[in-house]
Amino acid sequence: MSTSDRNDRADRMKGVLSPVVTPFKADLSPDPERFVRQCRWLASQDVGLAVFGTNSEANSLSTDEKVELLDRLVAGGIDPARLMPGTGCCALTDSVRLTAHAMKLGAGGVLMLPPFYYKGVSDDGLFRSFAEVIERVGDRRLRLYVYHIPPVSQVPITLGLIERLLKAYPDVVAGVKDSSGDWSNTKAMLDAFAAGGFDVFAGSETFLLANMRGGGAGCISATANVNPAAIARLFREWQTPEADAQQTRLDEIRGIMQRYPMIPALKAVIARYGGDAAWVTVRPPLVALTAEQRAALAAELGRAAFTMPGLGE
Amino acid sequence: MSTSDRNDRADRMKGVLSPVVTPFKADLSPDPERFVRQCRWLASQDVGLAVFGTNSEANSLSTDEKVELLDRLVAGGIDPARLMPGTGCCALTDSVRLTAHAMKLGAGGVLMLPPFYYKGVSDDGLFRSFAEVIERVGDRRLRLYVYHIPPVSQVPITLGLIERLLKAYPDVVAGVKDSSGDWSNTKAMLDAFAAGGFDVFAGSETFLLANMRGGGAGCISATANVNPAAIARLFREWQTPEADAQQTRLDEIRGIMQRYPMIPALKAVIARYGGDAAWVTVRPPLVALTAEQRAALAAELGRAAFTMPGLGE
Repeated sequence: MSTSDRNDRADRMKGVLSPVVTPFKADLSPDPERFVRQCRWLASQDVGLAVFGTNSEANSLSTDEKVELLDRLVAGGIDPARLMPGTGCCALTDSVRLTAHAMKLGAGGVLMLPPFYYKGVSDDGLFRSFAEVIERVGDRRLRLYVYHIPPVSQVPITLGLIERLLKAYPDVVAGVKDSSGDWSNTKAMLDAFAAGGFDVFAGSETFLLANMRGGGAGCISATANVNPAAIARLFREWQTPEADAQQTRLDEIRGIMQRYPMIPALKAVIARYGGDAAWVTVRPPLVALTAEQRAALAAELGRAAFTMPGLGE
Repeated sequence: MSTSDRNDRADRMKGVLSPVVTPFKADLSPDPERFVRQCRWLASQDVGLAVFGTNSEANSLSTDEKVELLDRLVAGGIDPARLMPGTGCCALTDSVRLTAHAMKLGAGGVLMLPPFYYKGVSDDGLFRSFAEVIERVGDRRLRLYVYHIPPVSQVPITLGLIERLLKAYPDVVAGVKDSSGDWSNTKAMLDAFAAGGFDVFAGSETFLLANMRGGGAGCISATANVNPAAIARLFREWQTPEADAQQTRLDEIRGIMQRYPMIPALKAVIARYGGDAAWVTVRPPLVALTAEQRAALAAELGRAAFTMPGLGE
């Protein structure tokens, strides 16, 4: 490994990232001011910004809307090196455009879904898809994280595909977010690729401690939208004696959130703890929590002594 | 029913439509000249043009690319009344933009996928999604056909959702394309809604005769890209004594096509019978047929005495 490669790898994004939920105005248009404020708060909690993830309702946004929001974040003072926007779309041309725009802004990385409309596609076709984006963007600074989330995308990223991508683009293909929910898959990715410098992010803090012990790089988790500081703390302290107790506490909060539809629940919690009711708005096809669900969720979090320090200040 | 309603329904699109395959240049950009030529040939074979369907690789195209292709079709002399473009995207704003553009051009209808990234969404969320598009487009001429293709979209259109949409927008919600591949589902849709003037299109000519006998409106089928005249003939002659024999012959050709990946196979057949090799190009994540597959498909079609009269002239 050359010195410049080592430097490149030392600079890579590590730790905990939040797939930032996207605020909408009453007319369902994105709300850039609230988005910038939320990203500032999240950054202050020591988490990176995986904007345009699944939990961001990113696939309910047009490419124009995503380009505009990215511009607004950077204009609003967000450090682009902390950004890992989701740039994988169904259409090759959208993925290229978004990825190139993220690189132009200096994003620290991009998290890329495979094209997800056509099912049962071959690894050959998926390789060609990622390769076309990498070649067309043509930026050596690109750090690409492939996004494995078969329960939603229904298009898996296999170990064989990662191996092929790493062989073809060793400096660009930097890691994976594994949202399979299947620890044995995360472990297989760690065992196969982590020693070679490939960064495995667990898709939930449920597996954060196990992932770090296995050589992983951190996690990118829905609940890092509402519980960022505690998750980031476990990342910093995973080698301390307190780590298992911290993991247990993270699991308690995550367990509460998981009893509700995740995206509307995240927004309801931000609305409540930030004192800003507009946050509950979701775009179709999602629906907001009912008043009853919001009250039940708030009661559960209250009993668990959950807090969001600094939100809404 | 008022006289104007009866007139509206008499004007609706019926018969056989082709989800027109989209030609790409070597650099994978859409090829408008070839697209216009293909649509002209299809129209000459008596089929309507359901451009931007699943078999069109529509979800591998950006919204900008679709808008441009629609403009080029109309500028190229294609009768917009014969067009039923697919306008259902993941993002509400894309669906609104494409649908409004199709209406501006005078499209006879639009075929609308549900937003398909998020899985397990409620009928409430899907209703709201279609309703937002209808309200935002705000054009009384809109004729919307919902697109049920659970094997690919993984987001089904239930009978309950159709009932709700029909109740709220009886003049706009005009029908369905059922690509479930499950005749019992098509029959349930016919039994529930056909008598009320809701047009059920089978998603394949396999069910064309059964669909017509059950009160359906026709079919929108991949293989209408390569076998349009024969399928359109069965639509015209379904009440004649020859209908069952015609259906059997259609099934024979379809059976051959189905032994290969459908979209690349359609393009390979068009390339061969039209003498235009550029047609084989597909966008990732799809992959073209191998030379061996192309040869085997051509041999099978040759043995079946398959022809494509007028293509490439």
